[in-house]
Amino acid sequence: MAGQRSRRRIPEATVARLPVYLQLLTDQFELEVSNISSEELAELAGVNAAKVRKDLSYLGSYGTRGVGYEVEFLIYQIKRELGLTHDWLVVIVGAGNLGQALAGHGGFTERGFPVGGIVDIDDAKVGSLIGGVRVRHVKDLNQVVQARNISIGVIATPGPAAQDAADALVAAGVTSILNFAPNLITAPHGVSVRKVDLAVELQILSYHEQRRANARAATTLQSVPGNGRRGASA
Amino acid sequence: MAGQRSRRRIPEATVARLPVYLQLLTDQFELEVSNISSEELAELAGVNAAKVRKDLSYLGSYGTRGVGYEVEFLIYQIKRELGLTHDWLVVIVGAGNLGQALAGHGGFTERGFPVGGIVDIDDAKVGSLIGGVRVRHVKDLNQVVQARNISIGVIATPGPAAQDAADALVAAGVTSILNFAPNLITAPHGVSVRKVDLAVELQILSYHEQRRANARAATTLQSVPGNGRRGASA
Repeated sequence: MAGQRSRRRIPEATVARLPVYLQLLTDQFELEVSNISSEELAELAGVNAAKVRKDLSYLGSYGTRGVGYEVEFLIYQIKRELGLTHDWLVVIVGAGNLGQALAGHGGFTERGFPVGGIVDIDDAKVGSLIGGVRVRHVKDLNQVVQARNISIGVIATPGPAAQDAADALVAAGVTSILNFAPNLITAPHGVSVRKVDLAVELQILSYHEQRRANARAATTLQSVPGNGRRGASA
Repeated sequence: MAGQRSRRRIPEATVARLPVYLQLLTDQFELEVSNISSEELAELAGVNAAKVRKDLSYLGSYGTRGVGYEVEFLIYQIKRELGLTHDWLVVIVGAGNLGQALAGHGGFTERGFPVGGIVDIDDAKVGSLIGGVRVRHVKDLNQVVQARNISIGVIATPGPAAQDAADALVAAGVTSILNFAPNLITAPHGVSVRKVDLAVELQILSYHEQRRANARAATTLQSVPGNGRRGASA
């Protein structure tokens, strides 16, 4: 039965929203919220309630009218669907500040992605310990990946080195790549690639800042006696 | 006219997708793609084409039947809407590996968010240069924010220090906060808060890895002669 459930394909857009729901639900659970309605979860996630209900229906989760969803059970269902009921080792390419931050962040390990290896091209970094993991040379990547059966690679190199890192990960047998470098990478069919853009969220904030600046400008215009724009701001 | 356009409120879910479209369109532009259909953009973004058209209609952008959207102009329209036609200085709280990675990443500055200040609570870090910016003590945060008129703060502290960092940013007059720490923070009404979870994308990859593992398991089951599950995998 479990096999059949997992073979059903969930739309990619839903897959991408599940971790967002998971994060929000985990926050709510920490705040000791035990039940949540689709409307409440929708508001937190910035989507509409019908979409939340549709997304969660792929998990076989339908909530209860007037009660909503049980937060703890929903967390379990999402984790099961995302494959988070066991750990996935990751290998990080790049032992610079970003690689060190990711390995030491705690976030990766706590979320079920312990760092199984770190490699770098710089001999000066090889041999140092980051978060308890010894940095190895990128030429040993195959060995690191195969010895620990790692399927997920994280690129934390400077932009221009990202494609070489991706090629090395693919050659070593990794089938999923998370790219933190600003450069776009390509990988063969059958390898999943996701890109993290650390500036995306800043762009959402700048939208809000621009609105605030415009609102202040409008207020200033209104306060000028006889200004013709006064009526337009209503 | 520009003032009126900016005062129109765009749904938050659309605002959150605009940076994703922007990133994808910028990638396409670098690949010398000049026009893109809503279907193509939808596929890249993992949403449906009707939603892409609706989102872009808020920008006053409707595309041309059979031709699609002009990539370069659409990039301009999204940047204008997000307030990305000018730079926004950010201040980073936390000069550890993550703060150093964010300040040195190049991504922030290239995307229009130059680092106007970095502060840390650790005297040993104060005075050092990161990406050309001198680290100052967190007790000088007010001065840093007000001297350079900074409205966006970035939290790059360990989790337990995140709320103190948020409080200090709000007290200094910052109105938007991007939180990279794993802990949830609260801020007064009127302050925008976004959280970056570096593990979210890993959770999407683990979904794919789990599917691959299940597919391999199913193939193995199929290859066992007389296995009763054979039919179920069709």
